[in-house]
Amino acid sequence: QGILERLESGEVVVGDGGFLVTLEKRGYVKAGLWTPEVVVEHPDAVGQLHMEFLRAGANVMQTFTFSASEEKLESKWKDVNATACDLAREVADKGDALVAGGICQTAIYKQDADEARVKRLFRLQVEVFARKNVDFLIAEYFEHAEEAVWAVEVLKESGKPVAATMCIGPEGDKNDVTPGECAVKLVKAGASIVGVNCRFGPGISLKTMKLMKEGLQAAGLKAHLMVQSLGFHTPDCGKGGFVDLPEYPFGLEPRTATRWDIQKYAREAYNLGVRFIGGCCGFEPYHIRAIAEELAPERGFWPPASDKHGIWGSGLNMHTKPWIRARARREYWENLLPASGRPFCPSLSKPDS
Amino acid sequence: QGILERLESGEVVVGDGGFLVTLEKRGYVKAGLWTPEVVVEHPDAVGQLHMEFLRAGANVMQTFTFSASEEKLESKWKDVNATACDLAREVADKGDALVAGGICQTAIYKQDADEARVKRLFRLQVEVFARKNVDFLIAEYFEHAEEAVWAVEVLKESGKPVAATMCIGPEGDKNDVTPGECAVKLVKAGASIVGVNCRFGPGISLKTMKLMKEGLQAAGLKAHLMVQSLGFHTPDCGKGGFVDLPEYPFGLEPRTATRWDIQKYAREAYNLGVRFIGGCCGFEPYHIRAIAEELAPERGFWPPASDKHGIWGSGLNMHTKPWIRARARREYWENLLPASGRPFCPSLSKPDS
Amino acid sequence: QGILERLESGEVVVGDGGFLVTLEKRGYVKAGLWTPEVVVEHPDAVGQLHMEFLRAGANVMQTFTFSASEEKLESKWKDVNATACDLAREVADKGDALVAGGICQTAIYKQDADEARVKRLFRLQVEVFARKNVDFLIAEYFEHAEEAVWAVEVLKESGKPVAATMCIGPEGDKNDVTPGECAVKLVKAGASIVGVNCRFGPGISLKTMKLMKEGLQAAGLKAHLMVQSLGFHTPDCGKGGFVDLPEYPFGLEPRTATRWDIQKYAREAYNLGVRFIGGCCGFEPYHIRAIAEELAPERGFWPPASDKHGIWGSGLNMHTKPWIRARARREYWENLLPASGRPFCPSLSKPDS
Amino acid sequence: QGILERLESGEVVVGDGGFLVTLEKRGYVKAGLWTPEVVVEHPDAVGQLHMEFLRAGANVMQTFTFSASEEKLESKWKDVNATACDLAREVADKGDALVAGGICQTAIYKQDADEARVKRLFRLQVEVFARKNVDFLIAEYFEHAEEAVWAVEVLKESGKPVAATMCIGPEGDKNDVTPGECAVKLVKAGASIVGVNCRFGPGISLKTMKLMKEGLQAAGLKAHLMVQSLGFHTPDCGKGGFVDLPEYPFGLEPRTATRWDIQKYAREAYNLGVRFIGGCCGFEPYHIRAIAEELAPERGFWPPASDKHGIWGSGLNMHTKPWIRARARREYWENLLPASGRPFCPSLSKPDS
Repeated sequence: QGILERLESGEVVVGDGGFLVTLEKRGYVKAGLWTPEVVVEHPDAVGQLHMEFLRAGANVMQTFTFSASEEKLESKWKDVNATACDLAREVADKGDALVAGGICQTAIYKQDADEARVKRLFRLQVEVFARKNVDFLIAEYFEHAEEAVWAVEVLKESGKPVAATMCIGPEGDKNDVTPGECAVKLVKAGASIVGVNCRFGPGISLKTMKLMKEGLQAAGLKAHLMVQSLGFHTPDCGKGGFVDLPEYPFGLEPRTATRWDIQKYAREAYNLGVRFIGGCCGFEPYHIRAIAEELAPERGFWPPASDKHGIWGSGLNMHTKPWIRARARREYWENLLPASGRPFCPSLSKPDS
Repeated sequence: QGILERLESGEVVVGDGGFLVTLEKRGYVKAGLWTPEVVVEHPDAVGQLHMEFLRAGANVMQTFTFSASEEKLESKWKDVNATACDLAREVADKGDALVAGGICQTAIYKQDADEARVKRLFRLQVEVFARKNVDFLIAEYFEHAEEAVWAVEVLKESGKPVAATMCIGPEGDKNDVTPGECAVKLVKAGASIVGVNCRFGPGISLKTMKLMKEGLQAAGLKAHLMVQSLGFHTPDCGKGGFVDLPEYPFGLEPRTATRWDIQKYAREAYNLGVRFIGGCCGFEPYHIRAIAEELAPERGFWPPASDKHGIWGSGLNMHTKPWIRARARREYWENLLPASGRPFCPSLSKPDS
Repeated sequence: QGILERLESGEVVVGDGGFLVTLEKRGYVKAGLWTPEVVVEHPDAVGQLHMEFLRAGANVMQTFTFSASEEKLESKWKDVNATACDLAREVADKGDALVAGGICQTAIYKQDADEARVKRLFRLQVEVFARKNVDFLIAEYFEHAEEAVWAVEVLKESGKPVAATMCIGPEGDKNDVTPGECAVKLVKAGASIVGVNCRFGPGISLKTMKLMKEGLQAAGLKAHLMVQSLGFHTPDCGKGGFVDLPEYPFGLEPRTATRWDIQKYAREAYNLGVRFIGGCCGFEPYHIRAIAEELAPERGFWPPASDKHGIWGSGLNMHTKPWIRARARREYWENLLPASGRPFCPSLSKPDS
Repeated sequence: QGILERLESGEVVVGDGGFLVTLEKRGYVKAGLWTPEVVVEHPDAVGQLHMEFLRAGANVMQTFTFSASEEKLESKWKDVNATACDLAREVADKGDALVAGGICQTAIYKQDADEARVKRLFRLQVEVFARKNVDFLIAEYFEHAEEAVWAVEVLKESGKPVAATMCIGPEGDKNDVTPGECAVKLVKAGASIVGVNCRFGPGISLKTMKLMKEGLQAAGLKAHLMVQSLGFHTPDCGKGGFVDLPEYPFGLEPRTATRWDIQKYAREAYNLGVRFIGGCCGFEPYHIRAIAEELAPERGFWPPASDKHGIWGSGLNMHTKPWIRARARREYWENLLPASGRPFCPSLSKPDS
């Protein structure tokens, strides 16, 4: 079944997690440059991460083609995009997952916003996706609604279902287009699925989703909703999101969400009507599993990786220490206020911009 | 060159990081039970992690045989130990690394401390290590000096170099044997390398190492020193270490060390005279790389994974945002006090025991 | 010169601080009941606090008649109000200060909002104020704009200048009347000075003042602005202000503002156009002095209590310890991020309502 | 009854609180110089504070003669000491309190430790105390056991009971004389009461008391124990105490103890066998009341100021808001973890020295 059939039948689609930050920690991607050429340099490492997300319950394998456009990779771009498709497909076929080809915002848009040049870059990638026959397409990580609309327009040419996500918060895009207006523009451009990904933590991302949903409702439009937040808590970030926080990108560890934070996020997303729920930077495989476990009652099954996980800490109930056994229950983990172990550090930061 | 030749020539030996916690987050190991059978169930996942540590600069591939004794695994124990050796060897041969076979404390010791039964369990594993011809042996994660001594005695029978680490803090072992006394006992039993691993964060682990070093000096003994701390900050833990903290094991995220914390740890360990420096639970590949990068001047080379890492954030110096470019310098990251993003949480916890 | 002449000439009027919380800590007032009868029971204690505020630079001595209406005090009300006037006058005459008679919201308003009964209560107090010839009148601590308007109407009958403050935040009054609308209503009812006092810390109080100012501007109305915030930081409070925080009223200590926080507040209030600047609960004499010191350049003089205070810590420049002498400078105190000394406590709380 | 009769009969003696910090906040004392001449300049302000401590339950009125020696005050010294005695006596006679004349360490001791000159300074003050017939004498705020011993020797010449307190922590005095040794020296020199005051918060002060008690026991000596800790939490201070913390003296607010913290301190002091329990810098009248209330069962009565205080928040049980009424119970306040309201600040600091 395709992505739209799934969503239209009411199924919860679990997305995958973040590749850049996770592969940086594994030693394969360079922060700041976020080197997509890893797919040809170390295909095993990329394939392994796809596999972990699949086992964690993801229904979507996004091609690792983030910023893998000709603009950035020059002559290597074609090989990178093709290999990324192959890696995603190989893993997807081992489980119940679709392959989604992804494109993202360009640098040239910010320079002169030349629609023809920007669309040409998108089209190049889409041609590879079409040739590799991905299941659907995602336009993601757009700061400007206008460029996202162009992306959707190009993706629609493929005839495949199109999802589109902005990397914005409740304050809207760089030109102050509100989340509601962004959603409306994207749907009008042809996106069947709209939402946000990256830049903001679970709490803020869901606030933005609420505004998108309300915007669509007010406009009388229908679309499926999709959220892929950071795996980091960012209550203190400004309009630019986590990149402006002083901890970005090498001091974000204390902000990492627990699995319980992500179960809460998954539940709230579901309650808001979002049915395509995944993660972005900071989302490790166990975070995706947390989505799949929280929504297991709705989905009707557990992900493979739950074989190695006791829901709500139940795996601790055999521990030799009674005070650790006492942690094998939902109330314990739901109410835990985890300490940072860093008494000389603050709990919030001021964004640099 | 063997482990002792390396250490005796003054070389810094970089250990590997944690398998249990990392593989738990990747979906392959069950917390609480810490299922070592992953090596036969998902050898690719284990091999991939070995490879990441190798790329990060590790000189030692520890066989993933933690708690893989007959006591725990029953009939599966032999296959698990043999496969773990093969996985470690396969990766070690792709770089400049040795294979170390590892054994750890038993449950039966706590029940009745029957020396013959405990030693028999150790001997079974050592037989596999001998057959697989590992390069040296490690007795690790011992809470009782007595059991650690038994382990060293068994490992010595193999004729291979023996390292021994306790999972204790400055307060000493479960019977109040001080770190200095523990070190003396282990060396007298035949260990050439002694130290600590797991249970405590970088700061406390180094305090314990200092006490071990002083104990050996006072006794007129010589041994190489080894430290493999947690990748979590635990200034608030008690004698039992991080397992007694309320966040263990599913809420430790805010305590995760940054790469800069680990560079500091590596430098302090080096200054203390420790030359075998690695990590345990919470140590991801990029933490091991941080050790290798901090001590690159002493070692004379960079690890492979540094191709994907600008030391001290230098990879940010091409960023489009000037305030992010401004983070591409050592002073910035050395002085950063990273926020938790959790204003409703404390910075320290009280141990449960 | 009267209050209006002062304000109209551009003078900065420094208000006084909080009586209830301060006298509670001194042992004279009961929290929760906030017993105004202290003025007859312990007039020296009240007079001493008036004197401290005068020395700190206050230009206004508010009669300590908060909740001293017949409704609450029964037969004692008259004596309490008269004595409070005498105590304020006695101190005011020792310096450059005016006496302001104050009334506040009633319990009966919330029960049935009977205008006649509420106004009768106000009128009783105003008759005492008129007889004692206070210099001007303040209607303060109103949660409902409607009741505040009634208060202003009664106070206006006296022919004296009237100030009116609400205890609201940016979200407006209990009936969702916005701060801007509240200000407009109060001015239309006859108040010459409008603003906020109590319930919210410095940062939030100034946000509310900005909204009041904008509301007046939009309505084409003119009035003097007045702010008397808490001496506690409450970034986490909800619409109800600090009373809903779990620390109210016996655990607020860690939230106490430093003198430097208050200098910042005074400067920001001034920059916003507020010219009547004082404090409420938690404002101790040294906080009032901080207002007077920050605005000494504008006022042209220092308060008496500055004889015992070196601005920006300059009194430390004779200390025997060099690292304490190094604190005798503005940059030090402006940039200090003071630790709580409470690592087991969070930095923010969730309001109970 | 004299101080020794009281203590020997098993009575709990409640000390008073801090004058310097409290009067600094009221505008009468200059921080850094800590100007004792306030007693002649503003006797009413000093008398008022004595009265507040008396009402709070203090059994001892210490003359406000801290650093009021000829060395510091030159010709004014005699008048200051005499007036301080009169002020203390006047209030003491209004209740059940004794007057204690106090002397503290000198600057010349640090310069050349000339015993004769130091003792001469002490003797001058003691002559005034003798003439004014104080009830007993206190040597307080000594960093060096040697100087404290000299002080005790001079005070003993008066024939009056002598108490002696050091401003040290568990690490001992400036010459590394341990708390236990300090206590022994002071008792051998003639002190009937020994302990600590100032420089350290409640928790650390009690640790030091424990060491003093153990030192005396080991030496077979008997003495009454006395503790007067700071009203600030200082778990992070070094050997020098709170003066070395970056917040000293103008940013200590977030560290201020709640009344509940002080009840805990009083109970722990009592359990340790300390029977003279008071406070120093940061101890406001309500903190002294908290001691008196916590130990009311042992003492058999409540202090006057408890008329204006509901024990354990019981005064809130009439509040109109149910969630505030819910705070009128012991469990609530005992378990409250009060937030700082400062998410950009750390919870601990590093001492400057």
